[in-house]
Amino acid sequence: MKTDLHPLMRQRSLDAILVTGPGQHNPAMFYLTGGGHMTHADLILPRDGEAVLYYRPMERDEAAATGLKTKNIVDFDWKALLKQADGDAVLATALRYKAMLEAQGITGGRLGIYGQGEVGERFAVFSALQRVMPGLEIVGESGSDSLMLAAMMTKDEAEIGRIRAMGKITTAVVGKTADFLTGHKVRDGVLVKPDGEPLTVGEVKRKINLFLAEAGVENPHGTIFAIGRDAGVPHSTGTPADLLELGKTIVFDIFPCEAGGGYHYDFTRTWCLGYAPDEAQALYEDVLAVYRQVVDALQPNAPFKDFQNLTCDLFEAQGHATIRQDTGIQEGYVHSVGHGLGLNLHESPFAGSGASEQDVLAPGAVFTIEPGLYYPSRGMGCRIEDTFAVLPDGKIERLAEFPRGLVLPVEG
Amino acid sequence: MKTDLHPLMRQRSLDAILVTGPGQHNPAMFYLTGGGHMTHADLILPRDGEAVLYYRPMERDEAAATGLKTKNIVDFDWKALLKQADGDAVLATALRYKAMLEAQGITGGRLGIYGQGEVGERFAVFSALQRVMPGLEIVGESGSDSLMLAAMMTKDEAEIGRIRAMGKITTAVVGKTADFLTGHKVRDGVLVKPDGEPLTVGEVKRKINLFLAEAGVENPHGTIFAIGRDAGVPHSTGTPADLLELGKTIVFDIFPCEAGGGYHYDFTRTWCLGYAPDEAQALYEDVLAVYRQVVDALQPNAPFKDFQNLTCDLFEAQGHATIRQDTGIQEGYVHSVGHGLGLNLHESPFAGSGASEQDVLAPGAVFTIEPGLYYPSRGMGCRIEDTFAVLPDGKIERLAEFPRGLVLPVEG
Repeated sequence: MKTDLHPLMRQRSLDAILVTGPGQHNPAMFYLTGGGHMTHADLILPRDGEAVLYYRPMERDEAAATGLKTKNIVDFDWKALLKQADGDAVLATALRYKAMLEAQGITGGRLGIYGQGEVGERFAVFSALQRVMPGLEIVGESGSDSLMLAAMMTKDEAEIGRIRAMGKITTAVVGKTADFLTGHKVRDGVLVKPDGEPLTVGEVKRKINLFLAEAGVENPHGTIFAIGRDAGVPHSTGTPADLLELGKTIVFDIFPCEAGGGYHYDFTRTWCLGYAPDEAQALYEDVLAVYRQVVDALQPNAPFKDFQNLTCDLFEAQGHATIRQDTGIQEGYVHSVGHGLGLNLHESPFAGSGASEQDVLAPGAVFTIEPGLYYPSRGMGCRIEDTFAVLPDGKIERLAEFPRGLVLPVEG
Repeated sequence: MKTDLHPLMRQRSLDAILVTGPGQHNPAMFYLTGGGHMTHADLILPRDGEAVLYYRPMERDEAAATGLKTKNIVDFDWKALLKQADGDAVLATALRYKAMLEAQGITGGRLGIYGQGEVGERFAVFSALQRVMPGLEIVGESGSDSLMLAAMMTKDEAEIGRIRAMGKITTAVVGKTADFLTGHKVRDGVLVKPDGEPLTVGEVKRKINLFLAEAGVENPHGTIFAIGRDAGVPHSTGTPADLLELGKTIVFDIFPCEAGGGYHYDFTRTWCLGYAPDEAQALYEDVLAVYRQVVDALQPNAPFKDFQNLTCDLFEAQGHATIRQDTGIQEGYVHSVGHGLGLNLHESPFAGSGASEQDVLAPGAVFTIEPGLYYPSRGMGCRIEDTFAVLPDGKIERLAEFPRGLVLPVEG
């Protein structure tokens, strides 16, 4: 939780943190500022002091709305800095950071850096900062080792409430999508529009985007709506020209966020239009059985990777190959059973090969459970995914309910 | 242009470039791959060799669709790398980059790095790469010094065509928004809905998002729809609860992009509902006069900053303060006259204080012209913005036409 930032900084011996980049679609900055529309800002938080948000003058209203202590970036004389740096903009930017840090009493120690940005320019600037402040150690952390992900991993009730609200919106959009599909007629084994032309995956995805926009949310990562062979490749987003053929598995994975790059939801259903061939039905039943057993086994404070192991045990017992046996496989169970989510679509806790002992289902954790089986060679795939939260009392809540049935009936 | 990458690399003595991050909403990666849905990829292009795209196995279809030479990231044995790095994931990632570079014959020299990412993690990884490849110099560039922005600055006809298409969509949405507003009735000086409740800025913005979704485009940076005092602060996005009051200036700045984070358009109109008070009319006429004179003065191959100077000359002659006189001002003309745009909403050429001699209106440049005046203390602001391209023959084209009138008539 955000209130854990100071103790987590102490634990990691960080003397200060610097968060940089836009105010939106930038999890670390959104987390600390609330997600105002700022094209670029910097925030410095000393371990034993108060955060200061440095803003561009045109964005003074958005900066003020954060409620943080703010400082106008033009108070640092750019022309003088550029002169001091012999016209080198990278060095001048580093000198400005030095002045900002020193104004907050930070002259050395360990500085953690966070935020989304252009990696080359930022690498050059922070390398230069390191040179002009030799007493400063600039620290970059990876995955669940990140201070920011460690804080974000446990959500407070307001955050869980926002993700729950996104779940309500997401499942409503999935319901509208089901209605949209089943409202079509069938001809020659595919869905057709009132004009008799076949409906395409591209048209379905555009409709999904409309439903999301009507609900006031954003879809920056797109939607997976993959039919047949595409459904057999977990991150294939679907081929826009594909037709909606009856009896083929459709993997529909949707992961929108609040407008401005806020909290996400993540949800998948697998559908067959009209009917399910035996092979698809069997695949679905295997996945559903594993989904149920894994969900029933969930325990607060358990290591998330235990459920990846359980999922592999169960799929292997059904006779499927798993990624635990071979990280290179493309058929069978090929990914991890879930991931944390929040301001990042993928964040701690992690369950896959990179998971550490910090990746536990602690109270406040919000995470997906999403077992799936993939057989591109047989033209099919199946995944079932819901998002869960561990509540403060340890109870585990599925954050939105939606039927998990395979077949969407259509008019012959 | 993309075909300039190799000569630009030679000119900058770069032996190779590494582009990293997601396939979408990541200009450098989108530029080189076409914008497929990849959650993370790496692309290495040696100056005298062929690009290789390193992909995650679940994203093999999206990687293959780029048409580039591809390599599966799991071909580099992560467990072995992690063991070699004593469990340090940052170092293991650096060792994997070393192996990737060496596989493409790069063992030293200058490596430019590009792409969007988490700046702390990337700083740590590239610092580690620098340590494990001491013969390699990792180069990060800023602003128009960036190889990638230098290449992107001149667009080919296909790119200009895509931006022109975005202009058509954007102005159609602006037209629909005008119709939406003028379709409302007035009561007590504000627009009211059929149920008699006042319309809010938040509702207008949601409607704009719907129009954009219907057109199949994305709006990752939001929309500025700012009335009254908010219109006097250039990047104030507008207050959702504000009412649509007659006779107040509304700055409506819209900057959507192709789905998946592709090419942008950027466009602003200033409207008064019902009527324009004399003060608003005078402000608008000053801005429109400057807009016209600057657009008439545009010349291919001219330094973009010349037009910032011209804009300041003109506004100062009208009696307004300008940012040229004082970078700290908040009333008058407070920003730059425009910026390049493309896969980035803001890219080369630049016209403001950071502009260099490389920032010229070369054939292929696509840029905005957006003079504006801001008087928050008087509760008003005005900006007029269109997007232009320098065509291969030097002709300058406004990429979409839309009336620039101030008053939107409404039914009394």
